[in-house]
Amino acid sequence: MKKVAVILSGCGVYDGSEIHESVSVLLALSQLGADAQCYAPDIEQHHVINHLTGDEEPESRNVLAESARIARGEVKALEDFNIHPYDALILIGGFGAAKNHTKWAFDGPAGDVNEEVKCCVKAFYEANKPILALCVAPVVLAKSLTGESVTVSLGSTELPANYDIASFNEGVEKLGLNTQSCPVDDIVVDNEHKIITTPCYMMQGSLAQIYQGIYKGCQKLLEMS
Amino acid sequence: MKKVAVILSGCGVYDGSEIHESVSVLLALSQLGADAQCYAPDIEQHHVINHLTGDEEPESRNVLAESARIARGEVKALEDFNIHPYDALILIGGFGAAKNHTKWAFDGPAGDVNEEVKCCVKAFYEANKPILALCVAPVVLAKSLTGESVTVSLGSTELPANYDIASFNEGVEKLGLNTQSCPVDDIVVDNEHKIITTPCYMMQGSLAQIYQGIYKGCQKLLEMS
Repeated sequence: MKKVAVILSGCGVYDGSEIHESVSVLLALSQLGADAQCYAPDIEQHHVINHLTGDEEPESRNVLAESARIARGEVKALEDFNIHPYDALILIGGFGAAKNHTKWAFDGPAGDVNEEVKCCVKAFYEANKPILALCVAPVVLAKSLTGESVTVSLGSTELPANYDIASFNEGVEKLGLNTQSCPVDDIVVDNEHKIITTPCYMMQGSLAQIYQGIYKGCQKLLEMS
Repeated sequence: MKKVAVILSGCGVYDGSEIHESVSVLLALSQLGADAQCYAPDIEQHHVINHLTGDEEPESRNVLAESARIARGEVKALEDFNIHPYDALILIGGFGAAKNHTKWAFDGPAGDVNEEVKCCVKAFYEANKPILALCVAPVVLAKSLTGESVTVSLGSTELPANYDIASFNEGVEKLGLNTQSCPVDDIVVDNEHKIITTPCYMMQGSLAQIYQGIYKGCQKLLEMS
């Protein structure tokens, strides 16, 4: 049974991991007969957003403890991560990727990246083990693999999107990566570097369409590993 | 397009809605071409559990605001609920059903039920519109439809379970409902009363198996509506 490490960044699209994407990954891996282990950095969230009102709340939450909600308690601290048992890596989307794993949401491509997340991404890349990045998580790849001519997708500028795809493409290209267009239910595969991306909620689409992209991505990830 | 109301009880298995079950319902409805609208009561959670350690935390969270994490902001307060646009109802599992929607986790069948949740369940039942209840949510049916000879399942006493199924059966039967055995990947259908149940995480099983039960349940729900 293949083993896949899944990195989370909290629990909720506006301050952590996008929940639909996280569960879709766990479901697709289960349907494909692979074993998933969730990880998250043991750090405070950048902030807490009330998902009903959109307001910032005067409280703090821990990324690892909130990620445990998605993982039903079965999450490990990224500081204890060791690549050896794992065949592949998945980076989930949601603002947590751009607020907790990196500071892209505030500083764009100049924003910091969490060192534990970066080390983990580099370890898979250098071991030639495949990586699947969902939604906005290609910005984590860009901050971890700056200067590598990896091709990723953050969606399409021609189809209905939830965010400014052109601006994300520009930022990622500034760090040396290439971008490619992709609809919500499909994947972009960089065979040379074993990097797979699918746009998920960067684009407008039904959950069924997003699941199609994630399922294809997980299938390709397991094929490549 | 059929419209289904989905009632949530927070965000996280130990103090709210079970997240895998919630997203699986939204995905199955999307794949089956139905429209989902999430609802939750605007009340404080019974308590907040750290999902990493299992400890109770000295803080409070609102059920509606936490449910909004699962619904990506698209959740409505149950006090504004009106049955007319809806064809069917789904009750999600997780401890929130037994701590926030009812107090079953503390007081068993004698525990209180939230009046808004109860009204909503009774409205569907009396309108002969179908209801799907996942996991431990049959206790919400039992507290809302006490004395009705509805048949539900909380799992099987013969297969590997995560909880004491016999004790849950006993409590539900004390309130006048009937219980039936069911494996994790299947459903129990009460055709007369249009009530469908599937055990989910009451039983041991993979997420793929749980999804099978949920998909079958949603399929039957839409057929019946």
